[in-house]
Amino acid sequence: MAGECVQFLGFWASPSALRVVWALKLKGIDYEHIEEDLLNKSPLLLKYNPVHKKVPVLVHNGKPVAESLIIVEYIDEVWKQNPLLPQDPYERAKARFWVKFADEKVVPDMVSTFMKTGEEKEKAAKAARECLKTLESGLEEGKQFFGGEAIGFVDIAVGWIGIWARIVEKLKDVSLVDEETMPLLHAWLQNFLEVPIIKECIPPWDKLLQHNKGYLVKLTPDST
Amino acid sequence: MAGECVQFLGFWASPSALRVVWALKLKGIDYEHIEEDLLNKSPLLLKYNPVHKKVPVLVHNGKPVAESLIIVEYIDEVWKQNPLLPQDPYERAKARFWVKFADEKVVPDMVSTFMKTGEEKEKAAKAARECLKTLESGLEEGKQFFGGEAIGFVDIAVGWIGIWARIVEKLKDVSLVDEETMPLLHAWLQNFLEVPIIKECIPPWDKLLQHNKGYLVKLTPDST
Repeated sequence: MAGECVQFLGFWASPSALRVVWALKLKGIDYEHIEEDLLNKSPLLLKYNPVHKKVPVLVHNGKPVAESLIIVEYIDEVWKQNPLLPQDPYERAKARFWVKFADEKVVPDMVSTFMKTGEEKEKAAKAARECLKTLESGLEEGKQFFGGEAIGFVDIAVGWIGIWARIVEKLKDVSLVDEETMPLLHAWLQNFLEVPIIKECIPPWDKLLQHNKGYLVKLTPDST
Repeated sequence: MAGECVQFLGFWASPSALRVVWALKLKGIDYEHIEEDLLNKSPLLLKYNPVHKKVPVLVHNGKPVAESLIIVEYIDEVWKQNPLLPQDPYERAKARFWVKFADEKVVPDMVSTFMKTGEEKEKAAKAARECLKTLESGLEEGKQFFGGEAIGFVDIAVGWIGIWARIVEKLKDVSLVDEETMPLLHAWLQNFLEVPIIKECIPPWDKLLQHNKGYLVKLTPDST
């Protein structure tokens, strides 16, 4: 759509912002990237997301949309090429179910695993693995992605889990998605993160590890 | 649609189940109501919602959909009459934004107000009122409902807030939605809960108060 103005307010290490970047790239939408300094938020961010004051925000012809999953659905409804959500209502409901499950169940346990130490870390990791195993049941054998043959809404929404699992493994020495117990999820993670259009949006690993290590230093200054 | 089988697994006092009942009634869909005993869940519930084992579940021609908001969107996509979500993508995004805000911000503070006592109760009530005031900004002056002239997705999703506010007022002596500071939200609450099709689905007040009083007795056995 010519003459359109699409602006994206994001932050390079934000998992939810990455969902929107992936959606924009998969749809082939030209946009202006506005990088936010989260310690010194811009007047633009405060104006366009006055309720949460958070990234990501998509501003389409001057109209702001906030909340990453809502933005991805908006993008899918406005730009019809390369659909992200299935067309069938039942399949759409299933996709939304897994996305909600990942946000509400998987992510908190993964974050806990990252933040805790000792026995508490092990307990959180066990809970995270159980949730990840449940999430795996949303993947059909023989299909490459949650979306089937093409990357879809669930892949974009839960894609960060793959990145997060690697960060946790590296910084906390905990394996969350192993090949033996979660063969489908493990294969999905490998496939998804290697798709060129997905891979090129992921921040450099060293920078990402350093950034997340910073959180750990703040959380447990004596343990790093 | 003739020959269709629509089953609804619910529980009379569940706020999320009520969302689905309201959606079914507004759409004029015939369905079989299966009441669950949450202390002794049926094999049907465990079969159809193995992940969460919770109501509500909608079973449409043998296919289960779980999670109340996902069910309401599913209903809206399958049965096109009396649309609940707006057609315009931007308006849809706005509706989804307020629903998410209500679930993530308003409801926890209202529940806290209900569960806490003394200073903690007052603190939670203050936070709840601030969130409710923000939610009010989703209502346009001169429009009867969040959905405009007709009841829509947001009304259905946040409708329970009106019931909950009355329960908190009655059992905890705290006013959360007052006419003076939240005139639009107060008017919406009065209007919405009096719409016949909405009102007739709400459980009897005495029964509802008694049921919720039961929670308080369990929480704080000495304070009731």
